Amino acid sequence: MPLSDQARRLVDAPNIAFLATLDAEGAPHVSPVWIDRDGDTIRVNTVVGHLKDRNMRRDGRVAVSLVDRGDPFERASIRARVAEIVEGDEADRHLDLLSRKYTGHEVYPWRSPGERRVLYRLEPVRVADK
Amino acid sequence: MPLSDQARRLVDAPNIAFLATLDAEGAPHVSPVWIDRDGDTIRVNTVVGHLKDRNMRRDGRVAVSLVDRGDPFERASIRARVAEIVEGDEADRHLDLLSRKYTGHEVYPWRSPGERRVLYRLEPVRVADK
Repeated sequence: MPLSDQARRLVDAPNIAFLATLDAEGAPHVSPVWIDRDGDTIRVNTVVGHLKDRNMRRDGRVAVSLVDRGDPFERASIRARVAEIVEGDEADRHLDLLSRKYTGHEVYPWRSPGERRVLYRLEPVRVADK
Repeated sequence: MPLSDQARRLVDAPNIAFLATLDAEGAPHVSPVWIDRDGDTIRVNTVVGHLKDRNMRRDGRVAVSLVDRGDPFERASIRARVAEIVEGDEADRHLDLLSRKYTGHEVYPWRSPGERRVLYRLEPVRVADK
């Protein structure tokens, strides 16, 4: 489904988002993430094997929320499902896009030796922005 | 379990937190909230009948995450369980405490006619701050 105009604005600005996933027992976990979007598809990027990665591979039901850095009353809460999981060059290039957006660094400067990046495409299923 | 020193600092500052709850199908929902703490117990406040309230009454497994407004690399992710649900005067007074913390208004200025506030006490079960 489409994002709202406000959700698009919040995602396009370098606001920290919070991604909720489900652990093996079905309990929620939430942590800060960088995000961007391709049309109405939200993209997040993590390291293969990290908790978020294991959770999203097991259960594709996720949620994302964020507020405007300057005005926390401007907010969005998005429920989504994992539509695609991409590793390799595309995930690495996406991390550099996020680095530019959030830090100004053209290339993400904090890669750990041997870490494999993974890009998740999230399709919104419900969007609330009030 | 105790909060980490960093989690305490983040909770004590007027940082917006993000609360993840589970809906009736067990899918995650996450939205921005004001929080504070009483020792190691995290407190959130919502309106009786709202989604978060319905979710937390049904399933007490929740998670909270927040970053420092000035340095988003300073972060905490806390898994918790609902330990107590309080309505009435105590919930109203708690909302005013949050109003002071986040807005400077001594009394929360945006109550809707007839809304009943509810205070949740959340006991941490796991704390990550890296």
